[in-house]
Amino acid sequence: MSAGQIRLYLDDALGAGQTVTLSRDHAHYLANVMRRQAGDAVTLFNGRDGAWSAQIAHLSKRGGTLTVGAQTAPQRNPPDLWLLFAPIKKTRTDFIVEKAAEMGAARIFPVQTEFTNSERIRQDRLQAHAVEAAEQCGGTFVPEVAALQKLDTMLSSWPAGRRLMFCDETLAEDPSLARALNPATRDTPWAILIGPEGGFSEAERGRLRGMSQAVPVQLGPRVLRADTAAVAALTLWQSQLGDW
Amino acid sequence: MSAGQIRLYLDDALGAGQTVTLSRDHAHYLANVMRRQAGDAVTLFNGRDGAWSAQIAHLSKRGGTLTVGAQTAPQRNPPDLWLLFAPIKKTRTDFIVEKAAEMGAARIFPVQTEFTNSERIRQDRLQAHAVEAAEQCGGTFVPEVAALQKLDTMLSSWPAGRRLMFCDETLAEDPSLARALNPATRDTPWAILIGPEGGFSEAERGRLRGMSQAVPVQLGPRVLRADTAAVAALTLWQSQLGDW
Repeated sequence: MSAGQIRLYLDDALGAGQTVTLSRDHAHYLANVMRRQAGDAVTLFNGRDGAWSAQIAHLSKRGGTLTVGAQTAPQRNPPDLWLLFAPIKKTRTDFIVEKAAEMGAARIFPVQTEFTNSERIRQDRLQAHAVEAAEQCGGTFVPEVAALQKLDTMLSSWPAGRRLMFCDETLAEDPSLARALNPATRDTPWAILIGPEGGFSEAERGRLRGMSQAVPVQLGPRVLRADTAAVAALTLWQSQLGDW
Repeated sequence: MSAGQIRLYLDDALGAGQTVTLSRDHAHYLANVMRRQAGDAVTLFNGRDGAWSAQIAHLSKRGGTLTVGAQTAPQRNPPDLWLLFAPIKKTRTDFIVEKAAEMGAARIFPVQTEFTNSERIRQDRLQAHAVEAAEQCGGTFVPEVAALQKLDTMLSSWPAGRRLMFCDETLAEDPSLARALNPATRDTPWAILIGPEGGFSEAERGRLRGMSQAVPVQLGPRVLRADTAAVAALTLWQSQLGDW
């Protein structure tokens, strides 16, 4: 990012002429990390009102205020796409959340499967990664990272109208990707489910295959790590049904 | 990976009944990390002869030998696809090489662009990442990681018959991805070029646009980090023209 493009996500309502109070973290970042001072410009977004230019009115190492100027970009929400994934090692879990935010997932659900190692996640840390990714990628939307829940529980009450793409490496080789992602489903809700490193259990696979909403796909002849599979699946969905 | 699926890449010729001498690193890995012993099975590949089962004949912490059994998978090479990318921060550069190997790039070229920060790379470390990715993803091929070279130099002698997909974020929005990746070019050589975080310079963009082999594409409405763009571009190419 070049010097003029500091982008901050905050929860305040945004509108021309409003004054926004900086959090301690944002003040520290602007003053100490980025060496900004009163009069400098930043871009603000809150996930609802688009992007706005703002000027630093007052800044110390512990706080400060901004004056909001004009809207610079309209609010742009991603398609109604959820990403469900089984948490793996810390770095790769962080990575999946970052990529999901960058690639335009609307909601992110860490799920516990039979072969998932993680019993817990740091939901606040993952949410912070999603915020940082939105700040970096120039977006105006931040996907919500849900609390860890059991895949079984989610599937038990799966919405009737939401399609669920899942990567089934036991599928016979079949170039059905284009058929699986039927253009007629473009404006309907979708979800992508990425399994854990050990794959789904037989019971899980059976259950998924029995769901009318489920769409099994295969991601090529090589075994992909979960983080790679997440980006690949998001790419295919976005390029064929999404906003690319 | 489950216990039975240790996969080792080595440079030896492989054939039934052959004896293979373990490197010190491989012996350490098998004996100390994976707690294997004489009689245990591993899978071997050398990037040329497919995958082979092998049995540990002798193992100490510093060396050992394996006896090669039967071939378990034929050699499978990826399509003739190069990945060129501008090295970024260490972790993300490692990641790009890992993902390129997983996703089936045939050769990996770190390139220095006008806005690339890195003056040097650790070619041996990146090559080791490509090997590890091939071991993990069940492949039989390891892409070569070339030495860092200037993008300008590569473009000056660019092969006449090799198409070059590059991500041009200044393109007017145009859903031309399907047209850009023309199915008629499926069996021709291709390359993907991922620019640095700061984008290409005006001169570079002008030069690329002037090349008859160049195919500009756009990867959605959000700005993707270089590592995300690499996986996304590889996904699109593999799913439309490659071996997926």
